[in-house]
Amino acid sequence: MPHLVDATFLCEPPKELVLADGFAFHHGERIAPFTIVYETYGELNAEKSNAILVCHALSPGAHAAGKYAATDAAAGWWDGLVGYGKGIDLEHHFVVCVNFPGSPWGTTGPASVDPATGAPYGSRYPWVTVDDMVESQRVVADHLGIATWRAVVGASLGGMQVLLWAALHPTRVESIICMASAAAVPVATVGWHLIGRKLVQSDPAFRGGDYYGTGETLRGLQLARMVGHMTYLSDAALEKKFGRQRRNGTRQFEIDSYLEYQGAKFGAAYDANSYIRVQAAMDEFDLQEQFGSLANAFRRFRGRALLVSFSTDWLFPSLETARISRGMRDANVTVQHMDFETPNGHDAFLVDYPLISRPVRQFLER
Amino acid sequence: MPHLVDATFLCEPPKELVLADGFAFHHGERIAPFTIVYETYGELNAEKSNAILVCHALSPGAHAAGKYAATDAAAGWWDGLVGYGKGIDLEHHFVVCVNFPGSPWGTTGPASVDPATGAPYGSRYPWVTVDDMVESQRVVADHLGIATWRAVVGASLGGMQVLLWAALHPTRVESIICMASAAAVPVATVGWHLIGRKLVQSDPAFRGGDYYGTGETLRGLQLARMVGHMTYLSDAALEKKFGRQRRNGTRQFEIDSYLEYQGAKFGAAYDANSYIRVQAAMDEFDLQEQFGSLANAFRRFRGRALLVSFSTDWLFPSLETARISRGMRDANVTVQHMDFETPNGHDAFLVDYPLISRPVRQFLER
Repeated sequence: MPHLVDATFLCEPPKELVLADGFAFHHGERIAPFTIVYETYGELNAEKSNAILVCHALSPGAHAAGKYAATDAAAGWWDGLVGYGKGIDLEHHFVVCVNFPGSPWGTTGPASVDPATGAPYGSRYPWVTVDDMVESQRVVADHLGIATWRAVVGASLGGMQVLLWAALHPTRVESIICMASAAAVPVATVGWHLIGRKLVQSDPAFRGGDYYGTGETLRGLQLARMVGHMTYLSDAALEKKFGRQRRNGTRQFEIDSYLEYQGAKFGAAYDANSYIRVQAAMDEFDLQEQFGSLANAFRRFRGRALLVSFSTDWLFPSLETARISRGMRDANVTVQHMDFETPNGHDAFLVDYPLISRPVRQFLER
Repeated sequence: MPHLVDATFLCEPPKELVLADGFAFHHGERIAPFTIVYETYGELNAEKSNAILVCHALSPGAHAAGKYAATDAAAGWWDGLVGYGKGIDLEHHFVVCVNFPGSPWGTTGPASVDPATGAPYGSRYPWVTVDDMVESQRVVADHLGIATWRAVVGASLGGMQVLLWAALHPTRVESIICMASAAAVPVATVGWHLIGRKLVQSDPAFRGGDYYGTGETLRGLQLARMVGHMTYLSDAALEKKFGRQRRNGTRQFEIDSYLEYQGAKFGAAYDANSYIRVQAAMDEFDLQEQFGSLANAFRRFRGRALLVSFSTDWLFPSLETARISRGMRDANVTVQHMDFETPNGHDAFLVDYPLISRPVRQFLER
């Protein structure tokens, strides 16, 4: 039985799967040895038929739910949806979340030390793809003996992995839930992502990716995160949160201080090489290009699909989810598309639990 | 009679007004001597009653219409609206456009040499306000003996100057046309502008504003312009123009190449000190803060007003123009608000001449 604390539970520490033969990247590179970090919550049943894969997006890692210790300041990144009695209910399901290659949160990444050189991989780390992310999850599934996922669930970049699971491993997925995502991001999103990468790469302190150990602040990464934050929030949410308010007794706009805070926090924690690689993976992902058409991508998938989009998300707009839905219908997939009205922009999947919890729960109970 | 070439006319070269006693900035600084550059088109009638002031925005200068020589590659920045037989018809009107203080296009600016030191003003140049812009136009009006403008017209930052003319000099303005503008920009626009300024100021090559003569490329200014371009265009316009297209035979996105081109072009031409100052002037402009309420701002204005907004302009949104309209109604100003459906975003005022020309013409003929 889980140890419940506050509104969450105590989870196990992250697990490591070490691949002595290494990991084969989609573009042909191999890194060996290679460590994959993942977490699990709940109990896998004897038939191994109650496993749900949760796919993370750009910012977080494998720590999707729970706290390691009751004193932890925050719970996992999707704790609002994953937990005992929550939308993805750990009373019934065994949840797995894998930190994908390229991310800085434990799995061998650009900041990891290459045993051959004794220095971080840095600029020599491969440019990852969504295929690599799915492959790392497949390796963990095989390791755990999970032949079929009850569901594969994710939002934003996590949703891209969900779609690719259905396309690459259709017989291993009983159902999918894809939120605030895209089969290919629109050009406006590509533009914003490109600017973020240019900001990181134009920073002299980044040194082309080999900045480790210099101790210099990467202002470019901070600025890229500020751009990111602007794109994650809707104008309405910004208006409600800040308006044109100034900091007490100064002329500094509150949003200025907020952007600097978010930039500094992220810049101190996240790896710049990971940032540019993971963003590029999102932009390069294009199911239609990869499979000829969306219908082709989903042709062999016979599970059910729940697609969720949010009215004010202009980074991963509702229209794109509607396009995915059409592609699935053309492939005779049983698909439901729910578009929610919310002022919370792309961040809605991390905020609007009252909107998404019940549909997710009902979809999984069917 | 004007010399007509192609779809435009040959105009006179820019004029200079040298203020030996200098220009007094709103925040208290004075620069002396101070040169104001302006252009005029058409003929001022004997009663000096047919003068229209056109106010420019961030990027362009006083060259609003016409070509200096038939071989010029491009005509003035609002040549689609200002000309013989056009929306602002030079057959009937005398048009004045003044390059405002802080801009890099001729009027004494941050890149101008301070005769006291022999070096550019650079970081010592004042932080300008929309008040300074209006004041420079008032000085030129007095110099030309124009007691009353038939109309004051502008878009974006130009529209802010229009509104402030009505508030500061209500008896000198018979009518105003204000497009794609704001009495105070929304917080989302402040956020994007702030990021633009941070990009310029975080660039080591900017040297806090004293970068002149170093010959270094200001990558920060290029990147700021790329952010600007993303905000000027609507998602729909980007989709139509580029989609996810790649450059011939490469994996580079077309929008990548477009952004780099726009950034390099602007970065080579525009002064970084001007950029941060003019953007800050936009963010600081807040008529309600300045006059207590919008109704108070327009209380003494007895002219007519035409307000124009564009459906996909999220930098200067239609809702903000609606707020201005309400403020004017509260002040019993005769105001008309036209909101045009267009995919062209904030740039609509530079593109959608078929939409705006006739309403402008009809408004001026009344």
